[in-house]
Amino acid sequence: MLSILKQSHSSSSSSVAMPQGLDFSQALSEIEGMGGRGGSLQETRVRPLAKRRIDMHSFCSPSGFQRSPYLSARGNFAIIFQGSTEDGYRAYHADKYDEDKNPNVSKNFKVFFQLTQADMNLMDPPLLQYPDWKGHLFLREEVARFLTYYCKAPAPLKAENVIVLNGCGSLFSALATVLCDPGEAVLIATPFYGGITQSIFLYGNVKLVYVYLDSKITGKSTRPFQLTVEKLEKALQDARAEGVTVRALILLNPQNPLGDIYSLSELQDYLEFAKRHELHVIVDEIYMLSVFDESQLPTPWPSSSDFAVSGIRFGTLYTQNQDVINAVASLCYFHGVCGPVQHKVAQLLRDREWINQVYLRANHARLKAAHTYVTDELKTLGVPFLNRNAGFFVWIDFRKYLKTSTFEEELLLWKRFLDNKVLLSCGKAFECSEPGWFRIIFADKTHRLQLGK
Amino acid sequence: MLSILKQSHSSSSSSVAMPQGLDFSQALSEIEGMGGRGGSLQETRVRPLAKRRIDMHSFCSPSGFQRSPYLSARGNFAIIFQGSTEDGYRAYHADKYDEDKNPNVSKNFKVFFQLTQADMNLMDPPLLQYPDWKGHLFLREEVARFLTYYCKAPAPLKAENVIVLNGCGSLFSALATVLCDPGEAVLIATPFYGGITQSIFLYGNVKLVYVYLDSKITGKSTRPFQLTVEKLEKALQDARAEGVTVRALILLNPQNPLGDIYSLSELQDYLEFAKRHELHVIVDEIYMLSVFDESQLPTPWPSSSDFAVSGIRFGTLYTQNQDVINAVASLCYFHGVCGPVQHKVAQLLRDREWINQVYLRANHARLKAAHTYVTDELKTLGVPFLNRNAGFFVWIDFRKYLKTSTFEEELLLWKRFLDNKVLLSCGKAFECSEPGWFRIIFADKTHRLQLGK
Repeated sequence: MLSILKQSHSSSSSSVAMPQGLDFSQALSEIEGMGGRGGSLQETRVRPLAKRRIDMHSFCSPSGFQRSPYLSARGNFAIIFQGSTEDGYRAYHADKYDEDKNPNVSKNFKVFFQLTQADMNLMDPPLLQYPDWKGHLFLREEVARFLTYYCKAPAPLKAENVIVLNGCGSLFSALATVLCDPGEAVLIATPFYGGITQSIFLYGNVKLVYVYLDSKITGKSTRPFQLTVEKLEKALQDARAEGVTVRALILLNPQNPLGDIYSLSELQDYLEFAKRHELHVIVDEIYMLSVFDESQLPTPWPSSSDFAVSGIRFGTLYTQNQDVINAVASLCYFHGVCGPVQHKVAQLLRDREWINQVYLRANHARLKAAHTYVTDELKTLGVPFLNRNAGFFVWIDFRKYLKTSTFEEELLLWKRFLDNKVLLSCGKAFECSEPGWFRIIFADKTHRLQLGK
Repeated sequence: MLSILKQSHSSSSSSVAMPQGLDFSQALSEIEGMGGRGGSLQETRVRPLAKRRIDMHSFCSPSGFQRSPYLSARGNFAIIFQGSTEDGYRAYHADKYDEDKNPNVSKNFKVFFQLTQADMNLMDPPLLQYPDWKGHLFLREEVARFLTYYCKAPAPLKAENVIVLNGCGSLFSALATVLCDPGEAVLIATPFYGGITQSIFLYGNVKLVYVYLDSKITGKSTRPFQLTVEKLEKALQDARAEGVTVRALILLNPQNPLGDIYSLSELQDYLEFAKRHELHVIVDEIYMLSVFDESQLPTPWPSSSDFAVSGIRFGTLYTQNQDVINAVASLCYFHGVCGPVQHKVAQLLRDREWINQVYLRANHARLKAAHTYVTDELKTLGVPFLNRNAGFFVWIDFRKYLKTSTFEEELLLWKRFLDNKVLLSCGKAFECSEPGWFRIIFADKTHRLQLGK
């Protein structure tokens, strides 16, 4: 469709490697400090640039960064982001899908078979035309009914408050852009799923302000990494003191990587804090259907992650703020879901009996079994962890295996796991403030885990 | 998936309507001039804002713009963009797909039936997992083979130079972002398909610098609206004199709305101009398979528009610049195409016999017949037009029907067509410098056209 006719001349790329451990905003200012691209491409090529090294996320191998004279400053930054996750991706793609090796397959197969039913393959001509960019009405209506049913809403939720687009990364990108101007910020508690950083920054140029949590227990009714209003207040005031404008608060519920589910009274406290400071609240409930302890209160929102079909690219937004709906709708032009896929998703969501009796029953049983297997192993090995009941992961305390309490040591341990073909995510990837914490996806080859040294 | 918990209170929205005919960058500075959102939401609510009116594209009904205190400046701008195309969209959606009324249906049905073949419905588990964000390798390989075949390339084109994402609007957004920093610009000749304006601005904050063309014929070997290097040079120098940094040149080939196909020597001239000034060249060939005069030299690139299945959301980029590939790849995370749809598209592109013998043959014959019908009617009515052989549209000179040569008159004529249920696009929507030109999509109910008064 589009072709770029400029040739690349890799020999003329300036070498700009940046210091290890440089943080996100520093790395950006490094690139900006070079004066963007620094005038014409010709100028850039002849001007020697400072030699530095960058390692955006220390969880991946540090690698030299070749700054491209063909790209904008943010274009160069986009490459860094890609490089930073390259190792994990390579490992992922090299590690082919296999029923024997990967228990996650069986859960996935359930959705797979459901998606291949005859009524799934509708290719109605209107599905092939330009859609309403917010999503076809039939799907938004289905999402509204789904939410009404699973949330036990006192009044029916409305299709007009629903937006459907191609994944939650896209939703974060669109929301950050319409709620914040460039350089403004959003509050989030650490540790958190690190993908949010790039989702709100790459297009939106929106930054995160961290509310650092730690594992210390401060009172009898507290738990490790507990988010409190006091901590929210402090982070917000600190940011404001530094001249940073904060526009919103992101809550992950269930929390990734902790697996925590906030209580109703906690949620109420956070919302009151946000209201007091006129912050939007973005609640990411991507794992809401993956709560496998029935004593918990799930409020499920449909997403491709909850159905373990990430390749389907599907995420939904529910908001009563029509200004937000209208603004995000414009950006939906860039995040469209194919019409025939919207039909498939609507069919999937419509089938309550299958979701309840087949999918969720099997899914929760398998998650519970896998969780029990991993946590039993951890107990046997005497490794502490947070015992939660949501998501596909366990947050593990490997601090005692670090020689010193540093993120460099954490990275070495991470590499030792990788050398043994075990791909974990280390705490630094979640901006955890304490070195030594790791997230394990417990549906992923648990029997091959080789712990520590 | 994500929910926004902030309630909307429409009564507190400040009313900010802006002057008619205000241009794009002016409109932005109007919003920016309000100091973004102007501090806290509270402040914004109590501060009275200037009453103005905006009409971004005068081809749609001007409507008052309610500035939202809940959104960023760019979030408010996103709403304006949506409002500006609302009328056309409403008309489109109200005008249901109908075989009798809309000849375009039959062309579409061919792809529709092809997409419903049994081998199209593969739902292989890897298609449901996170893809390579640049597109599955099997599809990028198929696109490379498709291009090699249809471009009669001397050497095979490479899958590593191909990126697949959800539509060409997304491609423009990603390319503008990685090639330009905020506020930088891209050259484009007017009239042009107006959607590009929002595609490069909404996320990228990249502006267009216009090379204004007109209908005057200046010599025996020139044609109306001819793009020359002289005009490119002048527009570039003018922009630079105003301190605007230009990073790229966009060429539409076949041109939309003119229907022009550039000759090889013209293309060479434009590329040399771009090389001289170190500009990237982005060639949009969205209608390359829709050249229906066989004496022309099509260089087709697969896209959903060429197959008349816009709802499939599919666009491709081919570039040999690996820096551009890598940077766009990061942004592809926001523009993913569902795995099963990637399979369908690969199957579609693989079937040369069907494309050549069935699809293109029928498509070109129908386009040619519809083009002949419309242009014969125009000749009978004595209405001048550009007689071209590509795309689904004709560029018509209705200047003699304007009482005065103004865009206000053009808008009135556009409305008269709409009142008679004929949806045309007026020249202003393409930033045409002369009032009175209209684009007609000739597959759309040509027999119902009621011309002029």
